[in-house]
Amino acid sequence: MKTPKQAASADVQKKETLNVAIIGFGTVGSSVAKILSSHPAPGLRLTHVYNRGVARKKVDWLPKVKWTEDIDEVLSADVDIIVEVVGGLTPAGDWIRKALSSGKSVVTANKQLIAHHGLELIELARKSGRHIAFGASVAGGVPVISGLQEGLAGDELSKIYGILNGTCNYILSQIDKRGISFSEALAEAQKLGFAEADPTDDVDGFDARAKLTILARVGLHSDGKPEKVLCRSIRPIEAIDFVYARQLQSTIRQVSWAELIGENLLAAVQPAIVSESSPLASVEGGRNLVMSTGKFGGEIIFAGHGAGGNPTAVAVVSDILAIARAKHGGSNGLAEITAVPRNVTNNYTSRHYLRFIVKDRPGIIATIATILSKNDINIDSVLQKPGYSDASLPFVITLESCKSSLVEKALEQMSRLDFMVQPCVHLPIL
Amino acid sequence: MKTPKQAASADVQKKETLNVAIIGFGTVGSSVAKILSSHPAPGLRLTHVYNRGVARKKVDWLPKVKWTEDIDEVLSADVDIIVEVVGGLTPAGDWIRKALSSGKSVVTANKQLIAHHGLELIELARKSGRHIAFGASVAGGVPVISGLQEGLAGDELSKIYGILNGTCNYILSQIDKRGISFSEALAEAQKLGFAEADPTDDVDGFDARAKLTILARVGLHSDGKPEKVLCRSIRPIEAIDFVYARQLQSTIRQVSWAELIGENLLAAVQPAIVSESSPLASVEGGRNLVMSTGKFGGEIIFAGHGAGGNPTAVAVVSDILAIARAKHGGSNGLAEITAVPRNVTNNYTSRHYLRFIVKDRPGIIATIATILSKNDINIDSVLQKPGYSDASLPFVITLESCKSSLVEKALEQMSRLDFMVQPCVHLPIL
Repeated sequence: MKTPKQAASADVQKKETLNVAIIGFGTVGSSVAKILSSHPAPGLRLTHVYNRGVARKKVDWLPKVKWTEDIDEVLSADVDIIVEVVGGLTPAGDWIRKALSSGKSVVTANKQLIAHHGLELIELARKSGRHIAFGASVAGGVPVISGLQEGLAGDELSKIYGILNGTCNYILSQIDKRGISFSEALAEAQKLGFAEADPTDDVDGFDARAKLTILARVGLHSDGKPEKVLCRSIRPIEAIDFVYARQLQSTIRQVSWAELIGENLLAAVQPAIVSESSPLASVEGGRNLVMSTGKFGGEIIFAGHGAGGNPTAVAVVSDILAIARAKHGGSNGLAEITAVPRNVTNNYTSRHYLRFIVKDRPGIIATIATILSKNDINIDSVLQKPGYSDASLPFVITLESCKSSLVEKALEQMSRLDFMVQPCVHLPIL
Repeated sequence: MKTPKQAASADVQKKETLNVAIIGFGTVGSSVAKILSSHPAPGLRLTHVYNRGVARKKVDWLPKVKWTEDIDEVLSADVDIIVEVVGGLTPAGDWIRKALSSGKSVVTANKQLIAHHGLELIELARKSGRHIAFGASVAGGVPVISGLQEGLAGDELSKIYGILNGTCNYILSQIDKRGISFSEALAEAQKLGFAEADPTDDVDGFDARAKLTILARVGLHSDGKPEKVLCRSIRPIEAIDFVYARQLQSTIRQVSWAELIGENLLAAVQPAIVSESSPLASVEGGRNLVMSTGKFGGEIIFAGHGAGGNPTAVAVVSDILAIARAKHGGSNGLAEITAVPRNVTNNYTSRHYLRFIVKDRPGIIATIATILSKNDINIDSVLQKPGYSDASLPFVITLESCKSSLVEKALEQMSRLDFMVQPCVHLPIL
């Protein structure tokens, strides 16, 4: 391995071509190879591909590439840019640390690694005079990382909303359109390959949480711990919620929301009621959308395909090209990330949607209204569609704008009421 | 003035602070000054402001700035980055040439100058080892230039659609919502300050044409002459066209369209029928939207405020920061624009909307249908709302997908028919 100093001196010679290695030849990795070989960028050469079980992975359209199952072969080779597309915290994290320490730059699509260890890796890259770029870690082919970081560098952003998980978007829109249950929609999504066998990461918000942490760092210059971000599952959402949402000229989306509130960073991933006229409502299928609000430029929207081999590979290759530009000048041409650590708060202010399912009897609304009132919460409307059984009667109460902590407290008190058939579904109205 | 070489050697010393001068202290210029002074970027200092009639322009919140009415004072000063926000081909073009030749970098919002002389200025900057950045020249605060050029650098884009002119968008939406005439909507827009006294640049498409030329260069790597771009005015659009558009589940927008067709660049700015489900239809008021189509990443959307002092200033300041990053490294960290000259074609393939106003008599549809048929054009539908006078009867024919040149030829033949009360309004259906 080269030391950073040796690597830097190699740079001074400004060699014409940068060698690129791909670690992980799955959907994204093979798309990256395809793009690099189908419209070769001058000054870039794909030299190595690492994967387990090379025999199975090897393709004939990459004749000049060295295939290997030995990661150390790649890490010690004369490679300038390592593309990491295996995912996961380990061993990917160690490989990236080794690559940066040995004078290589890194391009990664690894959202969990960047969410949890991004600042440490950026600092390591800086010390080594190298780069780590992660445009592919959020929203696939949508160039939102570079957009926030460079295109909107001149603004002061205060808020970011995102639709960052295509699986949730697909499941929610199926429940909406076809009135099926969450479990049916999930089973279908799994059958079609839109959801994993273990759907936890997607439907419970952990995937979007990692992406939101990265967006907050890049756009709001705020570093919050991912595990502190509020994550609410979309599992409790049922078709009846879409019926009521429509009555509010709205729909339901898994929304990732980050906002600077004083010195704190509000960060939450949860199903939310969004107005039909909002850009968030128009996002279909596997698409992603990010909406930022800036002090000077107002609302800016980035949207497009959020997943898939080819769109994600576009982000990877764009990052490779950015590093190549910077490297060919022998200097840091990439924007630096400056993020301050911030306390993450989950206490947001919004209007609220509460959907109850109760065993009907006289006095229910009065009981609930009294609890809300004692918690200083004002009711906005009570919605009840006819035609449901008294044994399991759904109805909705919407609340005027107030802090979510007040609502949580009131719901805690209500949870002990004997007429509640199931826990209240509580969604912010955005 | 410093020679480029002297300037370059000054760079080697890597002075800590870059001096910035603003040429033109209007809406955008003062917003740029406000952003630079309200959240000062380390390493940037606003040192000069040029404007005619300084006494009238001077503000007390910029105490450390040298105000001048003498452009040569700015051009010969120790300034690293010149922000040109006066607009127009001359004298702005000469000032920018002088600035680049004397070792300064330039940030400009000047769409006409960049559309007509962009490549020459980029080449001059390159020769001088300096930068010219023009993110503010298209779509105000929407970071579409950096998005296409850097964020999507890894894709091969083939098509760009844009809503690039807020004035047209405002006028068309007023005609739509309130059923008023084009002239009324224009007069109102002028009264409200949304349209200029001479609205030609906006309503006849010349403003959008300059922006489209720049987008094609940056996104499609294609350099077409702006004066070759098809420009069709929105003046002939009347309320009746929105009535028929709605019947087609569509609306009407001024759409800027650039597409690679073989070796040619299709480029057109014109009112078009767009489906209500298209992102183009959802653009309200002064907002702008750009939608690109890439071979690998598919459709990507950028949207936001397309005009106004503050949003445009965000783009300017983002460009200043990009140059500062590149400069502080003493190298070219900005993406280079590589565009090949291309023949501009106006002959596009789409479905078509033809709105006639005729003096009614038997046989009109037959006559028109015969001409269309002789030109190998297939009719898709004939739409006619009841309740209009026979002396001035509007109706619409939609055509199956065919080349626009065929339609133009047929319309030329129809123009001589004695029952035509006014020229046919011909819009592509996108």
